[in-house]
Amino acid sequence: MKKINTAPISGMQELLPEAQATFDRLKTAISETYRRHGFLKIETPTIDRTEILFAKAGGDTEKQVYRVFKTAETADDSDQALRFDHTVPLARYVVEHENDLAFPFKVTQIGRNFRGERAQKGRFREFYQADVDIISRSELPLEYDAEVILTLMDTFSNFELNTPVVARISNRKILNGLIRGLGLETKSRDIFSIIDHSEKVPEEKTLSAFSEIGLSEDETNKIVSFMNIRGKKDEVIPQLNSLDISDELFKEGIYELGKILTLIEANVGASEITVKTEVKAVGDMKIVRGLDYYTGTVFEFNLPEHPGLGSVSGGGRYDNLAGYFTEQKLPGVGGSIGLTRLFYVLTENNLLKSQVIEKPVDYVIVPISENEIEFSMKVATDLRRDGNSATIIFSNKRLGDKLNYAAKISQKAIIIGENEAKSGQYEIKELFA
Amino acid sequence: MKKINTAPISGMQELLPEAQATFDRLKTAISETYRRHGFLKIETPTIDRTEILFAKAGGDTEKQVYRVFKTAETADDSDQALRFDHTVPLARYVVEHENDLAFPFKVTQIGRNFRGERAQKGRFREFYQADVDIISRSELPLEYDAEVILTLMDTFSNFELNTPVVARISNRKILNGLIRGLGLETKSRDIFSIIDHSEKVPEEKTLSAFSEIGLSEDETNKIVSFMNIRGKKDEVIPQLNSLDISDELFKEGIYELGKILTLIEANVGASEITVKTEVKAVGDMKIVRGLDYYTGTVFEFNLPEHPGLGSVSGGGRYDNLAGYFTEQKLPGVGGSIGLTRLFYVLTENNLLKSQVIEKPVDYVIVPISENEIEFSMKVATDLRRDGNSATIIFSNKRLGDKLNYAAKISQKAIIIGENEAKSGQYEIKELFA
Repeated sequence: MKKINTAPISGMQELLPEAQATFDRLKTAISETYRRHGFLKIETPTIDRTEILFAKAGGDTEKQVYRVFKTAETADDSDQALRFDHTVPLARYVVEHENDLAFPFKVTQIGRNFRGERAQKGRFREFYQADVDIISRSELPLEYDAEVILTLMDTFSNFELNTPVVARISNRKILNGLIRGLGLETKSRDIFSIIDHSEKVPEEKTLSAFSEIGLSEDETNKIVSFMNIRGKKDEVIPQLNSLDISDELFKEGIYELGKILTLIEANVGASEITVKTEVKAVGDMKIVRGLDYYTGTVFEFNLPEHPGLGSVSGGGRYDNLAGYFTEQKLPGVGGSIGLTRLFYVLTENNLLKSQVIEKPVDYVIVPISENEIEFSMKVATDLRRDGNSATIIFSNKRLGDKLNYAAKISQKAIIIGENEAKSGQYEIKELFA
Repeated sequence: MKKINTAPISGMQELLPEAQATFDRLKTAISETYRRHGFLKIETPTIDRTEILFAKAGGDTEKQVYRVFKTAETADDSDQALRFDHTVPLARYVVEHENDLAFPFKVTQIGRNFRGERAQKGRFREFYQADVDIISRSELPLEYDAEVILTLMDTFSNFELNTPVVARISNRKILNGLIRGLGLETKSRDIFSIIDHSEKVPEEKTLSAFSEIGLSEDETNKIVSFMNIRGKKDEVIPQLNSLDISDELFKEGIYELGKILTLIEANVGASEITVKTEVKAVGDMKIVRGLDYYTGTVFEFNLPEHPGLGSVSGGGRYDNLAGYFTEQKLPGVGGSIGLTRLFYVLTENNLLKSQVIEKPVDYVIVPISENEIEFSMKVATDLRRDGNSATIIFSNKRLGDKLNYAAKISQKAIIIGENEAKSGQYEIKELFA
């Protein structure tokens, strides 16, 4: 027989049932928290027209998009590809269904996206993303930025991690205003990029990068002082003001950040919830979110005890969701958890309180002989009706073999012999693998 | 601005949030019932090697498979395509992870599959399938066939339909034995095909088809009597025996069907469950499941009040799951619900008790002014902690506008004014859209 390689394609996550159960527990925590925060779930097709997908993509993303061949029967259709994120299909969805949606549209998408990146440990070509977005047809109040961040904070606090999480929040207007206030507009792109990379390189490298793009020592110092501002609202806002930049955008950004931090700090302290994982929020001027399309609030979630693991969630405010598809201006704010990567990071680094659900079945029922099958099925039905999972072993093997199998999938066995079937009484036996 | 077509590609389901919530309710009923029956969930990648996928595909399926272009960065990999069902990736999965799985392996996959079929009303190119399978490395007892059928029956009875469901069960060995007993082996393929299509054409057409392939009147009468056998075990088994066919396979098939019907009938009557939808099981000799790879038990679920809608689930017993990938023989039994098509059929024909979840948010909280936002957020936190979904309206619009928006997404509003914020007391207002 021809030997076929049965491994999944590299870059594709494929889990054993026990790990899959742990993955699903995280996924359920996410979707349930999003639901409670009032986000409506939608699903967009995996395949879309390249005309739609490439409207925004460009550059590296376009190179990584999985295009699909037309089949004989779909040959009449336009060029098609697999979606690489949820944002572009969402923009299409909102424009297409605008008249049937209530705005602000609080929406969540949890599903698989695709990027044909070079295979690499911890990088995935197919990956779950869990997005929340709030889209408006008119001005979208700042409180919604706080709501998105609080939703993600709640989500992380519903995970059972043995390490804390921090939401780091900034506002693009502050850095844009600072750059304008210092008269450095022509170097804006470089400055964004240097700050964005600053946590991945030693400090000297950041300083020399600023000098390489022609910043004076004074300008560099000002920006470095700015970058290092981090903390609660009462620490961050006065420090930003003390930079003494008389730019309107700078001031507007500080006002917005102050307002959002106030709401978040008030809400986190609002009630004595027993959170499963500690999650706090800080203002942090190192957060710029790359060269992305954000226009105001930007944020990133990190594990402060594991800075090397990078961000585990991010998002921000954008002025115009669907500028490529419609003239209607649709401002929004959103965030995303990269679930496949997050699961990989958490399990590789042992950051989940109970690492893997080892025994996914609640009860295994073991009829001794054929005569007890009918009663065993009744026992299973009763257990299932109460919400338990139950499996019956049908086999002529020895009892020892049956119990070995039971111990692999469950911690509890119910052995049904003649007496049990007759009396209707049975015992639950603890199994040890 | 260039006008872009923002409709989803034809053949792709895209639902508004209210319909999506109904779809998800069905999906949850399925996955929860599968879980209770002890099936372990796995997910296989959407993209796999064509070498794997085409091992089984062949014929029409191969023409409909969505192949993906290699990107610059994945060019080293083999040819790839989107999976068109769950069975082929499952076969690969079981072979790849055999040493880490406990057998019998009770497994479920719920996810999207892809076939680039000609677009047509009610046909989908991307569709959810919800599969259960039980795979063994040695002989797999017949009781597992009953367990798969009972799992699917339980699933349908957990749906809230206003029409009953019937599980129609047969066994390929009976028809194969009958054909052999009548000495018609060379016409076996044709006979299977004529019976398989018999419910879609008038009876005369079936009769003339038998005559066209050269069956005598006597042979045709025998097969037609066979085809019309349908009912409970105590009706079906005696009628089959009375056909007086002295073929061993025929008798083996009758034995197997009798045993499975006995188990199912005993279990359905086992307890007084308040089922949401009536589901019964019958033996039914019209069920052959096309020319598929089944070797024993075959079954199909139908809506008997709506025969034109065709089957809503099907499956059966196969001798060898992964014959293309391994010499290890892996017998199994499985079934599948085509969820996307099922949802389409149920909603198009108004067969769901409550057609669509119209108001997906439990509570909308309406602060009168900025001053009440902090208290409104506390109210939302409390509601969410109790499992409710709650959305706060942040906006400077008039109260009437806010309540109009609230009525679109919810049936209950909580208006928070100065008094409510001060006293901590609030009323819940019923909304009428």
